[in-house]
Amino acid sequence: MPIILNEHHSSGFSLNWTVDKVLYQQKSDFQQVAIVELQEMGRALVLDNIIQVTVKDEFVYNEMITHVPLFTHPAPEKVLIIGGGDGGAAREAAKHESVKQVDMCEIDEKVIEACREYLPETSVSYDHPKVNVITKDGVQFIKDNPNTYDVIIIDSSDPIGPAVELFGKDFYHNVYNALKEDGIFVCQSESLFLHQNLIKKVYDTISKLYPITKVYTATTPTYPGFLWGYTMGSKKYDPYDRMDAEKQDLQTKYYNHDIFKACFALPNFIKEVLESNK
Amino acid sequence: MPIILNEHHSSGFSLNWTVDKVLYQQKSDFQQVAIVELQEMGRALVLDNIIQVTVKDEFVYNEMITHVPLFTHPAPEKVLIIGGGDGGAAREAAKHESVKQVDMCEIDEKVIEACREYLPETSVSYDHPKVNVITKDGVQFIKDNPNTYDVIIIDSSDPIGPAVELFGKDFYHNVYNALKEDGIFVCQSESLFLHQNLIKKVYDTISKLYPITKVYTATTPTYPGFLWGYTMGSKKYDPYDRMDAEKQDLQTKYYNHDIFKACFALPNFIKEVLESNK
Repeated sequence: MPIILNEHHSSGFSLNWTVDKVLYQQKSDFQQVAIVELQEMGRALVLDNIIQVTVKDEFVYNEMITHVPLFTHPAPEKVLIIGGGDGGAAREAAKHESVKQVDMCEIDEKVIEACREYLPETSVSYDHPKVNVITKDGVQFIKDNPNTYDVIIIDSSDPIGPAVELFGKDFYHNVYNALKEDGIFVCQSESLFLHQNLIKKVYDTISKLYPITKVYTATTPTYPGFLWGYTMGSKKYDPYDRMDAEKQDLQTKYYNHDIFKACFALPNFIKEVLESNK
Repeated sequence: MPIILNEHHSSGFSLNWTVDKVLYQQKSDFQQVAIVELQEMGRALVLDNIIQVTVKDEFVYNEMITHVPLFTHPAPEKVLIIGGGDGGAAREAAKHESVKQVDMCEIDEKVIEACREYLPETSVSYDHPKVNVITKDGVQFIKDNPNTYDVIIIDSSDPIGPAVELFGKDFYHNVYNALKEDGIFVCQSESLFLHQNLIKKVYDTISKLYPITKVYTATTPTYPGFLWGYTMGSKKYDPYDRMDAEKQDLQTKYYNHDIFKACFALPNFIKEVLESNK
C-alpha cells in the first residue's frame, strides 16, 4: 500500500503525493521536519506536512526570489536570507559576481541537518566561500544588524508555525532598518488565488515603508494556488529602470532577463486587490 | 461524509476536491458529463472525472486562449472555436469590436445542454448575436470550411477521449487550410511541467506549418501542472510586432495588454525543450 502525503489546504481542497520513501523524520523545537522521496517530484523537504522544496521544481522559487531583487539592485554586495534553510536561495545569490557575502539565517538546525544530508542540490551552498550559515532566530538577528545589507530575502514557510512573526509589521520595520540606505527587501507572499487577503496586507504594510513597492509572480508546481506572489520593497531602485540595463548572464533553469521584464505584469484581478481601499 | 472528486493525474499525484452537490451527471456518446458544485471553486464542468471549467477560475484560460491570438491579428472578423462547449472562449471572442462571427463547434450536445442549464457564466455566449453554436465533429467541420477563418481556437480537453484527434498532424494540416491567408491558430498545450513531450510535439508540428510559431503561458488554478502552455501558429502576423500597437480595451479579469507582452517570456527549461533536436 503506498504512503500518501496528503497536503490539506482547505476543507475543499487537498493534494495527494505518493511517497516512495521516508528518509528523515524528526520533531525539532519548532516543527516536524521530514525528507521524503516523492514519486512525482523526487526528494522533498516537508515541514509540518507541507512540501517546502522538491528537487524537481525548487529552481523556480529559489531563482525568482533571489535574482529579481538582486538584478533590481545595480551592485549588491551583502545579502541576508531569513529562513531558506534548504540553501537554494543562497546558492542562487552566490552566483552574482558583485555579491561578496551571503548570510543565511535559519532558525531550525534540524532543517540544516536534514538538508545537508539529503538535499545536496540546494544545501551545496552551505560550503560556498561566500555563504555563512547562521542558525539563529531571524527576528532577533535582523534587530542586531542595522544598516548592514544591500538585499534581504525573506524565504519563509507559510504564515503559521515558526514563520508567523515573519509576516508582522514590527518585523518588516526592523528589516527596513537592517537594509542600507539603497537596500531592497523581498518576501514570498503566498498564492495570488488563495491568499489575497495576505497579499493585500503585506503590500499595504510594505508600501508604507518603501517608496517603491512591486508584486511579481512565478508558478511553482508544488505550491498550491499556483500563481505565487513575491512582494518587493525598494528604498531607491525601481525594477522598471533596470529592464534594459546590462546584467550578468547566469546559469539558471527558470530565470532569464525576459522573465525579469515579464514577472511584474499582473492580472487585472490582482491589480484590483492591491489597489482596493478596504 | 463529503463527496470527493479525486482527480488522478499520475500514480504519484492526485487532487481531492470536495463536492457539495452533483447537479448534472449523464453519459454522452463521448464521455461522462457532469456539473458539480465544488466547495473551493464553485460550479464546475467535469468530463470523465477531470475538471474542465470552474466559475472561479475559468476567466484565466478563456481570456488567455482568446485575446492573445485575437490581438495578434490586427482585425479578426471570423473566429472558429473547436471544442469550448462551455461557451467561455466564445464569450471572450465576441467582445472584440472587429469580430463579426464566432462559430463554436462542440462535438458533445450533452456538454451544451449541461452548461446551458448550470453554467450561465460561460454559456451566456450561446445567445449572443455574433455566436453560432454548432454541435458537430470539429475534425470534419474544419475539412468542410477551407480558407474561411481569421482565427481558429482549439479549446480542447486533454489529449485522451474525444479530443485525441485534435492533437494530430492531419487535423493541424486541415486547420491550416481552414484559415485565411493571414490567419492565426492557437491550441491549449497542457502543462509545461508535466507534459513536456506533448508541448514539444505540438511545437514541432506547428513550426513546420507556420512561419511564426510562439508558445505562451498562463496559470489556471484547477489545471494541474500549473504553468499552462498555449501554442500559436500564425501565417503572417507576429505578436512581437503588435506589442505596442493600439488595442481595444476590454472588460477582463486576467488579461491586459501588459500580460499580452509578458506571456511570451518563457523559462529557460521550456526554451530548452522547444529548441532541442530530439
